[in-house]
Amino acid sequence: MSLLIKNGRVVTADADFTADIFVVDETIQMIGRNLNVQADTEIDATGKLVFPGGIDPHVHLDMPFMGTFSSDNYETGTRAALFGGTTMVIDFILQKQGNSLQSALDEWRSRSDNNCVGDYSFHMAVTDFNDNTRTEIQKMIEQEGITSFKTFMAYKGALMIDDRQMIGLMEEVKKYGGLINVHATNGDMIDYLVAKHRAEKKLSPLYHYLSQPEITEAEASERFADMTYYTGCPGYIVHLTCEGALNAVRNATRRNQKVFVETCIQYLILDASLYEKDFEGAKWVMSPPLRQPKDQATLWAGINQGLVQVVATDHCPFKWEQKLTGKEDFSKIPNGHPAIENRMELLYSEGVHKGKISLNKYVEVACANPAKIFGMFPRKGTLAPGSDADIVIFDPNEAHTLSVNSHHMNVDYSAYEGWPINGKVKTVILRGQIAIDKGKCLVNKGYGQFIKRNKVEGKI
Amino acid sequence: MSLLIKNGRVVTADADFTADIFVVDETIQMIGRNLNVQADTEIDATGKLVFPGGIDPHVHLDMPFMGTFSSDNYETGTRAALFGGTTMVIDFILQKQGNSLQSALDEWRSRSDNNCVGDYSFHMAVTDFNDNTRTEIQKMIEQEGITSFKTFMAYKGALMIDDRQMIGLMEEVKKYGGLINVHATNGDMIDYLVAKHRAEKKLSPLYHYLSQPEITEAEASERFADMTYYTGCPGYIVHLTCEGALNAVRNATRRNQKVFVETCIQYLILDASLYEKDFEGAKWVMSPPLRQPKDQATLWAGINQGLVQVVATDHCPFKWEQKLTGKEDFSKIPNGHPAIENRMELLYSEGVHKGKISLNKYVEVACANPAKIFGMFPRKGTLAPGSDADIVIFDPNEAHTLSVNSHHMNVDYSAYEGWPINGKVKTVILRGQIAIDKGKCLVNKGYGQFIKRNKVEGKI
Amino acid sequence: MSLLIKNGRVVTADADFTADIFVVDETIQMIGRNLNVQADTEIDATGKLVFPGGIDPHVHLDMPFMGTFSSDNYETGTRAALFGGTTMVIDFILQKQGNSLQSALDEWRSRSDNNCVGDYSFHMAVTDFNDNTRTEIQKMIEQEGITSFKTFMAYKGALMIDDRQMIGLMEEVKKYGGLINVHATNGDMIDYLVAKHRAEKKLSPLYHYLSQPEITEAEASERFADMTYYTGCPGYIVHLTCEGALNAVRNATRRNQKVFVETCIQYLILDASLYEKDFEGAKWVMSPPLRQPKDQATLWAGINQGLVQVVATDHCPFKWEQKLTGKEDFSKIPNGHPAIENRMELLYSEGVHKGKISLNKYVEVACANPAKIFGMFPRKGTLAPGSDADIVIFDPNEAHTLSVNSHHMNVDYSAYEGWPINGKVKTVILRGQIAIDKGKCLVNKGYGQFIKRNKVEGKI
Amino acid sequence: MSLLIKNGRVVTADADFTADIFVVDETIQMIGRNLNVQADTEIDATGKLVFPGGIDPHVHLDMPFMGTFSSDNYETGTRAALFGGTTMVIDFILQKQGNSLQSALDEWRSRSDNNCVGDYSFHMAVTDFNDNTRTEIQKMIEQEGITSFKTFMAYKGALMIDDRQMIGLMEEVKKYGGLINVHATNGDMIDYLVAKHRAEKKLSPLYHYLSQPEITEAEASERFADMTYYTGCPGYIVHLTCEGALNAVRNATRRNQKVFVETCIQYLILDASLYEKDFEGAKWVMSPPLRQPKDQATLWAGINQGLVQVVATDHCPFKWEQKLTGKEDFSKIPNGHPAIENRMELLYSEGVHKGKISLNKYVEVACANPAKIFGMFPRKGTLAPGSDADIVIFDPNEAHTLSVNSHHMNVDYSAYEGWPINGKVKTVILRGQIAIDKGKCLVNKGYGQFIKRNKVEGKI
Repeated sequence: MSLLIKNGRVVTADADFTADIFVVDETIQMIGRNLNVQADTEIDATGKLVFPGGIDPHVHLDMPFMGTFSSDNYETGTRAALFGGTTMVIDFILQKQGNSLQSALDEWRSRSDNNCVGDYSFHMAVTDFNDNTRTEIQKMIEQEGITSFKTFMAYKGALMIDDRQMIGLMEEVKKYGGLINVHATNGDMIDYLVAKHRAEKKLSPLYHYLSQPEITEAEASERFADMTYYTGCPGYIVHLTCEGALNAVRNATRRNQKVFVETCIQYLILDASLYEKDFEGAKWVMSPPLRQPKDQATLWAGINQGLVQVVATDHCPFKWEQKLTGKEDFSKIPNGHPAIENRMELLYSEGVHKGKISLNKYVEVACANPAKIFGMFPRKGTLAPGSDADIVIFDPNEAHTLSVNSHHMNVDYSAYEGWPINGKVKTVILRGQIAIDKGKCLVNKGYGQFIKRNKVEGKI
Repeated sequence: MSLLIKNGRVVTADADFTADIFVVDETIQMIGRNLNVQADTEIDATGKLVFPGGIDPHVHLDMPFMGTFSSDNYETGTRAALFGGTTMVIDFILQKQGNSLQSALDEWRSRSDNNCVGDYSFHMAVTDFNDNTRTEIQKMIEQEGITSFKTFMAYKGALMIDDRQMIGLMEEVKKYGGLINVHATNGDMIDYLVAKHRAEKKLSPLYHYLSQPEITEAEASERFADMTYYTGCPGYIVHLTCEGALNAVRNATRRNQKVFVETCIQYLILDASLYEKDFEGAKWVMSPPLRQPKDQATLWAGINQGLVQVVATDHCPFKWEQKLTGKEDFSKIPNGHPAIENRMELLYSEGVHKGKISLNKYVEVACANPAKIFGMFPRKGTLAPGSDADIVIFDPNEAHTLSVNSHHMNVDYSAYEGWPINGKVKTVILRGQIAIDKGKCLVNKGYGQFIKRNKVEGKI
Repeated sequence: MSLLIKNGRVVTADADFTADIFVVDETIQMIGRNLNVQADTEIDATGKLVFPGGIDPHVHLDMPFMGTFSSDNYETGTRAALFGGTTMVIDFILQKQGNSLQSALDEWRSRSDNNCVGDYSFHMAVTDFNDNTRTEIQKMIEQEGITSFKTFMAYKGALMIDDRQMIGLMEEVKKYGGLINVHATNGDMIDYLVAKHRAEKKLSPLYHYLSQPEITEAEASERFADMTYYTGCPGYIVHLTCEGALNAVRNATRRNQKVFVETCIQYLILDASLYEKDFEGAKWVMSPPLRQPKDQATLWAGINQGLVQVVATDHCPFKWEQKLTGKEDFSKIPNGHPAIENRMELLYSEGVHKGKISLNKYVEVACANPAKIFGMFPRKGTLAPGSDADIVIFDPNEAHTLSVNSHHMNVDYSAYEGWPINGKVKTVILRGQIAIDKGKCLVNKGYGQFIKRNKVEGKI
Repeated sequence: MSLLIKNGRVVTADADFTADIFVVDETIQMIGRNLNVQADTEIDATGKLVFPGGIDPHVHLDMPFMGTFSSDNYETGTRAALFGGTTMVIDFILQKQGNSLQSALDEWRSRSDNNCVGDYSFHMAVTDFNDNTRTEIQKMIEQEGITSFKTFMAYKGALMIDDRQMIGLMEEVKKYGGLINVHATNGDMIDYLVAKHRAEKKLSPLYHYLSQPEITEAEASERFADMTYYTGCPGYIVHLTCEGALNAVRNATRRNQKVFVETCIQYLILDASLYEKDFEGAKWVMSPPLRQPKDQATLWAGINQGLVQVVATDHCPFKWEQKLTGKEDFSKIPNGHPAIENRMELLYSEGVHKGKISLNKYVEVACANPAKIFGMFPRKGTLAPGSDADIVIFDPNEAHTLSVNSHHMNVDYSAYEGWPINGKVKTVILRGQIAIDKGKCLVNKGYGQFIKRNKVEGKI
C-alpha cells in the first residue's frame, strides 16, 4: 500500500517547502521534489498546506464525571478529532482512590480499546498516591508506555492530592523519566467561594466564573512550580488560562527553571463575558473558566515567547440536557465544552491567518511539542521519513463557519456557533490511510491504535 | 551533479530519523528511507549524525578595530568555519559616521566578495542615524537583502548611537520588516570605570573585566527592551552574557513582549577566573567579558526556557602580537577571541554530550533559529527538499582535543587549548559541494556566496 | 516669647496623644499633659489635630521656564504654602550650562532671600557636570547646606545630563554624604513623540500626555536605579507617577537596593481623562503628565508598602494667559500646576479621611520623611523638644471647598476648583510665631529663613 | 509617685533630641528641655540614649512543645527580657484541636497571670478552625483584647491548618479588624525531607537545616500572600528568614498588596555554618533554620526598604539536657533558642553601631512597629505624654560580651557566647517603676500586666 501526496506546501515546526510525500504502508518513506515513484494512490496537494496530524494532549472521552459521562465516546470523539485534523489524542485515566493504577488502566482501556477511530494514549491521573501506587509507577512508564501522570490540586475529597503525595509522586516519576501534569488551581480557595456563592443563592453560571478567580490559579501554579523545583521532576501545567499563572512560570525562569505550559484554544479566543448570557453561559462552564481579554493577550504572547508550548482543548462535551442538571445551581453543571474538532482550524484562523503566530509556530504548538513533551517524537508530530504518516492537507483559503449542524462531535450545540473560519481541513491521513476526505470518514472504529510512549526526561 | 548521503541519523530542530538525503546540484531533492537513486557521489553516513550546516550570525572578519584588523580575513575565516561545521556566517558592516550605509556596504563587499569560502551575509551596523541614513533603510532591506541593523549602546564617540537615533532607526526598520540587533552595554558606565581604572594604574586584563560589571549590561538590556516595546520594532540582543541581562528580557515577558537573545559559546563554558592569569587573560579580552559560573547556569537555562534562541561566537581573532598592544593597558588590547571553528563541536560536547540540551535544541540554536530570525529560512537552517544542501556529517563518538596546532583559524593561539571534545565534524557539504572531508578543504575562496535575506517581521 | 497650645491631639509619624505643647521663642520646649506653665499666648486646640508643619520638598517659585516665570514668587508661594499648612519648601536652583553652581546659587538666593514668608531650602540642579562643577560639590554640601542635587534625564539640550555626567556626579555626591534627585523620564523617547505629534498636527494638550507614555518613565527609573546601584550613591526619584516606574523600584529591591520615591498629590487623585477637556486640559499640563486610575492605585499602595516615602506637589503655577502661549501647540504650554496650598488638605481628605492611609502615615509622608531624607530632621518634620516650633492646628471635621476664589496662590484658576475637602488648616505656627490664624497671614516676607541642611547618607 | 529622667538623648522612631522626661505614676507626663519639676526620683541620663521599652512580639514561655516545656517560664522569661531592655512580650497560646479558643486562653493565662515580671500579651494560635472556633473570634478581639491569630502552615497533624481553614479564619478575623500571623513554611515539603533524611540515617543537626530548604519557606510565603490577597485580610509573616520568602512579599507589592514581615535577630547575624559543628549545632536548631549570608543581606536590606517591619526573637529556650533528647535524631531536638534578653543589644550593636540601620529605624523595628501592628500604639512603642512609661536608658559606648555566665535566661548556654557588644542596657523603667538598674531587677513577678490590644485594620 502506497500513497503519494504531490506538490503540497509541506510545513513542520521547522520546515516549509513545496514537495511530494511518499508513504508506504503506515510510514513516510520519502519527501522530495518531483518524486519519481509509483503509488497506489495519489493526492494532488497543489496550493494546499500539508502538515503533521494534530495532537490534542488533553481530552476527556466517555469520562465519568459529576454523575454522568462526557457525551463523546472513544469512537465519536476520535472521529470528530480526525475531521478537525487531529489524528491523535491523549485522554486521562482516573485512578479510583483506594484502587490501583493498573485497575484504572484496565477499566479505561476496556472502554477505549477497539473503539477508537484515531490514535490515542492516556495520562494516568493519580488521585491516591501511597506505597502501593508508588510501586506501579515504573511499570506504567516502562511497560505500559504511560509516561505522564496527572495530578489535581483542586477537587478536594475527590481527585485532589495534597502536597505530600505530590512530592512523593514527583520523586518516583522523576526516577523513571516521566512527567507530572497538573490541574493547578487551589481547591480550597475555590471550594470556599462555591460554598459562599451557594449560601448566598448566587447560582447562575456567572458564579462558576466568580468562584475561580485568577488568584486561585496563580497560587497553585506558583506552588506547583515550587514543588517541581524542589524535586527536580519535569512538570507540565495543563489548561493554563491567565496572566497570574503564566507570571508564576515566568518568575520561575529567574531561578533557571523550566515548567511546561499548555493552554487551550478557548482561552485564547473566548472570554468571560460569555458568562453574562444567563444560563446559556453553561455551555462554557469549565474549570478553569474563561478569563479576560488581558489574559488572552498574555497567552498569545506566551506562545511567541516560547513559554507556552502546547495548545490543547480539554475537550469534555456534555449535551444540553446534561448541562441542564445545573439549571438551578452552577456547581452542578457538568464541566467542559466541545472543541476536539475545532482546535486546528480555530488556531489556524485566529492565530496564523490573523498574524498572531507564524505557520511554523502553529505546527509546533499543535503537533510537534505535544509529541516531543509526551514521548512520541519523531514518530508523531512531524513529517519525516520513518514517521507515522499522519498528515493533514489543509486549504488555507477556504472560508467556512463552525456550527452544530456540520460538526461531528456528539453534542447538540457548538461552543463556537457561527464562528467564521479561514482555512479548512480537507484530507486527513492516519498511519497511511486516508481517514478523512471529501467530508467523509473512511476509517472505522478500531483503526485507532493505543500508542505507547517513551521516557522524555523533560528536555525537548 | 548529484550526491547521496546514505543512512545517517538526520537531525533537525524538529526531526530525528535515519534516512538518506539526495542532493541535486546545490539543493536537497529528496529525503527518504532506502532511496533508490543513482548519484554521482555517495557518502555512507551510517552511525553518524547528519544535521544542517551551522550558521554563525555573529562574526567579525577582516574587521578594522582599534587600529588593526581582525586576523581572519574572509577566506581564512569562512574556511575555518567550514572545518568546524559552520557553513554560513553573518558578519558586520560598520557605517562610518558621516558616510552613507551604501558606501559602507560597498567597502565591506569589496573585501568579502570573491574571497569567501563559505556563505555569508552582513548585518549593517548603523553608527550615524540621520535623515540620509533613514532613506537608505528600505533599499538595504528590499534590494540588498540586508534586513538586520546592528546598533551599539557602547563605544561612545565611535560606534554608539543615542536613544533618539535608536528610536528613529527602530521606527524605520520596523516599517520595512527588518530587525534591530544591539550590543547592549551602557557605554557611559563602562567608560567611567575604564577611565577610573586607568587613572588608578590598574591596567591588567582583569580590569577589562572589572570595567564592565553585570549591571552595565543589565541596564542597557532593559533600556533596549523598553525601546523595542515603545516602538514595536523586533529586537535582538547579541552576545548576552549574564543573569542581570537575561532577567531584563524575562521582565519584559510580563508585558507580553518578546526580545530575541543570542549568547555565545564562550559565555556558556568559560568564566572570568581566566582573567586572573595575568596577561594571558588577554586571550579572552572581549566585550562583554566572560562572567561567573552563575551566569553560565542562567544561559543554559535560558536556552531550555526558549528565552535564548541563538548560540553564536562573536568571532574576532587577533594574533598574540596584536594582543600585546595592550600589554601595559588593558584598554588597548584588541577585543575578541577566535571561536568560529569551535562553536559547533564545543556546543555539542558541552551541551548535548553532557546532557544540558537535547539534540533537537542543539540544531535549533546553532542552525535553525539563526536562519529563521535572520530571514534565510527554510533555504538555510534545516534539511528539507528545496533547502540548500548545507549539511554536516558528524561523528558523535569521536573524541579529540582542540588546539592551535590543529585549528585552521589565522591566529597563533587557541582560546580552548587542550579542551577535550566528544564529537567531531567529519564531512561538510555546502550547496551540494563537499567542502570539508578527511580534514581537507575541497572548495576554494570565491565559492562562498553572499546570501540575500528576507524580511522577517519578528515572529518565528 | 512663649506660646502654649493646649489640649490638642498631637500626631507625628510616630505618636498620637492628647497633650499641651509649650514653645519658647522659636523652639518647642515641652510637651506634656496639663502643662503647668505660663505662656505669653495660649491656643486652645481641644478637638483639633496638631501636627508638624508640612514640608513640600518639590516646588518651583519664580522659576524661569519656557520663556516665562512661574507665577508665584517666593513671597506669594511660601505664603500660600503657609495657608495650606506647609511651613517649609525646597525649591530648585538651575545651574546654567557653562556656569558654576555657585553663580546659580547666588542668583537664586538673590531672588529668594528676604522674600520668603515661610522657611525654604534649595536642591541644586546640576545641568553641566564637569571638572569645575565637581570641585563645587563638597562646598555646596558642607558650607552651603545644600545636600541634594537634582538631575534631569529629560529636556535634552537644556537641562538633561547624560549617563556619564550622572555617574560622575553620583560618585562625587556620595563622597560627601549627599543625595541625587532625579527627574526620571527618557528625554529622547519624549522628544521623538513630541516631534512626531507636532509633525502630524496633533497639537492639543492631550498630545502632551500621549508624548510621555508610561514606558518613558519606567525606562528612566530603571536606568536611574541601575546607576545608583552601580555607584552606591543614595537616589531619590521625584514626581514618580506610574506603575511601570514604581515597578522599577520594586525590582531593584530584589538586589537589596533602596531608592527613595516621591510622588505628588495630583498623581494620587487626578487622572489623564482631564486631558480630554480640550484646551482646558492645559491646566494640568505638567511633566510627567497625569496617568491612569491603575497608577493612582499603585501609588497609594506604594505609600502603604513603604516604597513611596514622600508626597510633594511639584508646584509650578502659571496664569491662564501664560498657559495660552501653547494654545496652538501643546509643546509651548508652560509645564506645571498650582498645588502648594492644597497638598496637606487634599492628602488628609483623600487619604486619611477616606481611609486610604493612617494618620501617622500622613505625617510621615508629608512632614517627617522629607525632613529625614533631606537632612533637616529632627529640627523639622516632627514635634519634639528642641525642634523648631513649626506646628499646624487642623480641624478634622471642617468641610470646605477648594477654589480660586479662596486660595492665596498667585494664579487665576484652581486645579481643584470645587473639590470638596474634609479637614481644614486653622492655625499655623512657624518657628514659634503664629503665621496663619483666622484666615490671615500674620508674618511678613523675610520672616522665612533659608535652612541649611545636613548630610544624610541615605538611611532614614 | 514621680520620676524624672534628665538630659538623655531621647530617640523614638520619629524623634531624636536631648530632653528630660517626667513620669507620674505609670505614665509619661511631660517631655521637655530643662523641665522645672520636682520628682520623687531623678535619673541622670546625660550621655545616654533613652528609648521606648523594647517589644518582642514573638516569644514562647513555659510552652509545651515536643514533650517538654520551654525552659523560661513567665517569670524568668519576662525578667530576662527586662534585663535586655524589652519591657513587653507577646507570647503564643496554642489552641488544642477539638477544644475552644477560650479554654486555651484560660489555660495559658493560668500559667502567665501573676507570674510575669514584664508586660505581656498573647497571639492566639488557631489550630482547628471550625464552626465553633468561628464564633469565638469576635469575642477574642473585642473582649479579650487578643487581636492577632497565629496560624501554622507546617507541623501537619499537630498545629497545621489547611488552606480552607486558613481562608475561613481570615474572613472572620478581617470582619472584626484583626490580623493573621503565620508560620509560613510548607509542612509537607519539610515532612518529606525529614522522613527521607531519617530513613537515610542522616540524623545530625545539619539535617534539620537540610530538611527545610529556602523553597519550603518561599512557597508558603507566596501562598500566604496569595490567600491574604484573596481574602483582603491583613497578614503578618513571622520569623521570615530568607531571600526567597522576602521575594514573595516583594512580588506581592506588584499587585498593590502589603504583607507585614517579621524577622528575628538570629537570622540577621547567624548563619547555617553553625550546623556544621556536630551536635553543638543543636543550640540553633529552630524552625525555620538559620540561612546563608546572602539571606542576611536580604533581611538587612528589607529593613531599610521598609519591607521588613519587625525584629523579634522567637525566643524558645531549652536546656542542654532537653536538647540532648535529639542526640541521635535531629527531629527530636526541641526547636528554639534563647534570645529574649539579647535582642535589643545585638540589634543595636550589629545594626546601629555597624552602620547598617539608623537609630530611628532601630526603635521603629524593635519598639514602635510591634506596638503599631499589634494594636498597642501609642500606649506602647513610643515616648510621648500619655504613653506608658516604658523606658530604656542605654549606654551606646559601653562594650561588653554576651555569656551564659551573665545572662538571666533560664538556660544553661548562650547562643551568642562571647559575642562582643557595643552598647548596654543600663536602666529599664516599666510603667513608671525602675525595673532594672545597676544589674538588678527591682520588680517582682506579678508586676507585669496583661495588655489588652486594640483592632488595627492593617494600616500603620
